[in-house]
Amino acid sequence: MKIDILSIFPEMFSGPLDTSIIKRAQENGIVHIAIHNIRDYSKNKHKKVDDYPYGGGAGMVMKPEPIFDALECIGYRQESEIILLTPQGEQFTQHIAEELAQKEHLIFICGHYEGIDYRVYEYFKPREISIGDYVLTGGELPAMVIIDAVVRLLPGSIGKEESHKNDSFQNGLLEHPHYTRPKEYRGMQVPPVLLSGNHGEIEKWRLEKSIEITKKKRPDLFKKYQEKNNVNY
Amino acid sequence: MKIDILSIFPEMFSGPLDTSIIKRAQENGIVHIAIHNIRDYSKNKHKKVDDYPYGGGAGMVMKPEPIFDALECIGYRQESEIILLTPQGEQFTQHIAEELAQKEHLIFICGHYEGIDYRVYEYFKPREISIGDYVLTGGELPAMVIIDAVVRLLPGSIGKEESHKNDSFQNGLLEHPHYTRPKEYRGMQVPPVLLSGNHGEIEKWRLEKSIEITKKKRPDLFKKYQEKNNVNY
Repeated sequence: MKIDILSIFPEMFSGPLDTSIIKRAQENGIVHIAIHNIRDYSKNKHKKVDDYPYGGGAGMVMKPEPIFDALECIGYRQESEIILLTPQGEQFTQHIAEELAQKEHLIFICGHYEGIDYRVYEYFKPREISIGDYVLTGGELPAMVIIDAVVRLLPGSIGKEESHKNDSFQNGLLEHPHYTRPKEYRGMQVPPVLLSGNHGEIEKWRLEKSIEITKKKRPDLFKKYQEKNNVNY
Repeated sequence: MKIDILSIFPEMFSGPLDTSIIKRAQENGIVHIAIHNIRDYSKNKHKKVDDYPYGGGAGMVMKPEPIFDALECIGYRQESEIILLTPQGEQFTQHIAEELAQKEHLIFICGHYEGIDYRVYEYFKPREISIGDYVLTGGELPAMVIIDAVVRLLPGSIGKEESHKNDSFQNGLLEHPHYTRPKEYRGMQVPPVLLSGNHGEIEKWRLEKSIEITKKKRPDLFKKYQEKNNVNY
């Protein structure tokens, strides 16, 4: 997979993309990530990428030309998925992550200031995605979040130790509690069933706890689980 | 505000926390952010922070001791808000960001691998927060997202050019389209009303567009807006 990122803060990506699974996926050639500074595509002598909004109001608007030029320069094609990170977008979910993991080329445009000139939307018809109902400074962190969720789904990117077969949401329930050594810590014990060696009992306990936690913390998810599995607890 | 972050990948934070609004807020003394490597609190000679799960299964579990020791060492108090980033948590929203912006001390524990030993939950009763229904490699990116959303709400952290008075969600609607120079770009025009200088008409156009966009993209938000404002379009 090829990922291009358009940002006015390319330096933000250095830590997150150089660590852990994403770092290794790049080293192993599973994903190629290139970060492009939108300012480099500004023809303005001060490398200006924003300007005052027509019609007045607070905040600045990102100009269309540098974004058009950047997209053409990195070679977007019909098959490229152009993603614009914006609070206006559809809510990012694990399902969308799975969908994006099938693509060959993702391009992320990270917005800033009040927004991006609307002609970028009109012309490129990007897929607008939001990672949640909260206000962030720019699209950089959302881009990193989506890249993390997508790259870890690419075949070969995840080692045994990070196995995702029990990840939350994979079976529609939240995870059961986990325990590791020591058996007793500050007077708190590991539940005896987990030390029993009885795999049937352990699985039963884990499913019960998953259901209990999901019911309590995320009744919305639990309802979906009930409907899907046709169960009624 | 003081923010402490507990992570096994402290280097991930360098880009995002050293840029833009968060950087400036730190320089201006509005927020103090300290990043702690959980490994530094491991008493194991290999600085091991995880171990196999009791009861078997794939993945590793983060051990309790280094996290207990780190929390005690950085001096958590009754008033400290301990936040554990986990897919099991309550969904982060702008409302929670506003709530957290009132606190004096936030502590973020970034989970990894399969999860964190449950005794950390039992003992510290952290506030569990998720930034959305998708699976990420660890709690680092979610911590950055929350810190960004919270810090930009702190008085003095946002300059005029990043004004958030028109931010999405502030009035319960998504934003109207923005335009800046040039007036015509590749045959695409700025809507004439925005060039008219008639502020009444401009406001009317913007509200109409906000409503149109919200209705189309986020019917759930639009319904709330209708109920709150007692309107019926």
